[in-house]
Amino acid sequence: MKVGIVGLGLIGGSLGLDLRSRGLYTIGVSRRPQTCELAQQRGAVDAASVDPAILATVDIIFICTPLAAIAPTIRTVIPHIKADTILTDVGSVKQSIVESCTPLWPNFVGGHPMAGTAEQGMAAAQLNLFAGAPYVLTPTENTPQRAIAAVTEIAQLLKARLYTSTPDLHDRAVALISHLPIFISAGLIDTCINPDEAEAIALAQKLASSGFRDTSRVGGGNPELGVAIAQHNQEQLVAVLSQYRDRLDDIIYLVKNKRWQEIDELLQETQAARPQFLNE
Amino acid sequence: MKVGIVGLGLIGGSLGLDLRSRGLYTIGVSRRPQTCELAQQRGAVDAASVDPAILATVDIIFICTPLAAIAPTIRTVIPHIKADTILTDVGSVKQSIVESCTPLWPNFVGGHPMAGTAEQGMAAAQLNLFAGAPYVLTPTENTPQRAIAAVTEIAQLLKARLYTSTPDLHDRAVALISHLPIFISAGLIDTCINPDEAEAIALAQKLASSGFRDTSRVGGGNPELGVAIAQHNQEQLVAVLSQYRDRLDDIIYLVKNKRWQEIDELLQETQAARPQFLNE
Repeated sequence: MKVGIVGLGLIGGSLGLDLRSRGLYTIGVSRRPQTCELAQQRGAVDAASVDPAILATVDIIFICTPLAAIAPTIRTVIPHIKADTILTDVGSVKQSIVESCTPLWPNFVGGHPMAGTAEQGMAAAQLNLFAGAPYVLTPTENTPQRAIAAVTEIAQLLKARLYTSTPDLHDRAVALISHLPIFISAGLIDTCINPDEAEAIALAQKLASSGFRDTSRVGGGNPELGVAIAQHNQEQLVAVLSQYRDRLDDIIYLVKNKRWQEIDELLQETQAARPQFLNE
Repeated sequence: MKVGIVGLGLIGGSLGLDLRSRGLYTIGVSRRPQTCELAQQRGAVDAASVDPAILATVDIIFICTPLAAIAPTIRTVIPHIKADTILTDVGSVKQSIVESCTPLWPNFVGGHPMAGTAEQGMAAAQLNLFAGAPYVLTPTENTPQRAIAAVTEIAQLLKARLYTSTPDLHDRAVALISHLPIFISAGLIDTCINPDEAEAIALAQKLASSGFRDTSRVGGGNPELGVAIAQHNQEQLVAVLSQYRDRLDDIIYLVKNKRWQEIDELLQETQAARPQFLNE
């Protein structure tokens, strides 16, 4: 199997390092000549070019661009590839991607390897980034079996934990545990910079410790990623934000009305539930 | 200066270890004989007893019990102590404590050393727990200067970062950066166990990673502490929860109406503001 990787950032670069270390011939494409060069220097690809014509003979292509560039990239690539080439992506939202990409290339299967680091770009690429991490495939009823089989085989080579889901279910699950936390957390920081509370905030900045640090981490992260998630998973994000607001209203009601017993039950329940979400 | 410590848990025990290491004679009181024994074995106190009469000659007493026990403990202690003994506490809420304790013993000053570990109890006590951590004193206009001076001296011995604030301002500041995160975070977990979303949640449990782990940490913590905070800082907690809900409503509005530019601005702002709250 000859593999193409379009988009040589952290995910594309790490994928290349892993696949080459497992003996697969790997060809990279980036818009920037410097990135092609760096990917070759780092051993993430056997060959690389800014010209997608280099992908003419590959069997499977991983589109590793940001979300907004996935469908446009597929349009750019398809004039150059074999009719039976399998396309897959690594985007963190699936419904909108699967809907826009499947009509362009029926031999497409959506995927989401859930790995990352605080750093980005080819320079941060590393071996075994995907080992032990979830890798979700989101085929539809029309997705060719051989496309699913090929990406499954690669996810296994990466030693990822493979899951299969509908695009919609994937998007609801990540909305809950990945996208909702970003906006909950941003709301916390936003509350703590309210100019009406300037005096309390000046003291709060000196007193803040690990509770604030952890709860605010993802809300203080990369704005570009937060916006892309909101754009591409808008419907599910609004749904979980609304569910969250209902829970928050319940909590405010309980505190306002001094329902200590029910607050205790709620916190017992959240304490008991949390470990079921910890995989590390 | 001879120091009394009532309540020999993590905070009381760590205080004793530090003060004895700096040469102060330290007397402990606990309701449980085994705790008195352990405190002596660990070198956290020079003497200890279940009988508050042992405090007859001390100059200053730290009340290190849970919030609900602070005022009742002061009532138990005052028949046994000198009239000029200084009392202080270590509770994480100050307005309600200062209001209930000052009438019992005018020579009282509220305090809040903001240190802790994941573990609790005398067995977890450690040297230098307070070094570099905030220590907030919350005198009122009637608090005797020598009470403030004595606790200030000890906070300096502990190498804590000393701040002075009104009880009300303290409670607003900790409501923002310490109490609000607990309930925001509990609301996240509560949303992620919504039985209407069972299928998405089953997948979400497998996919959850560091974003969920960090954002949910304090909401999955000790329920007893969460309830005590809600009880003792109820008014300020309701206020910041309501401010937070307003911010959340703004965010939901922006996502619902695809105001990407404004979402980007919000996330730029929260990213820029967060480092001002990180002291470590």
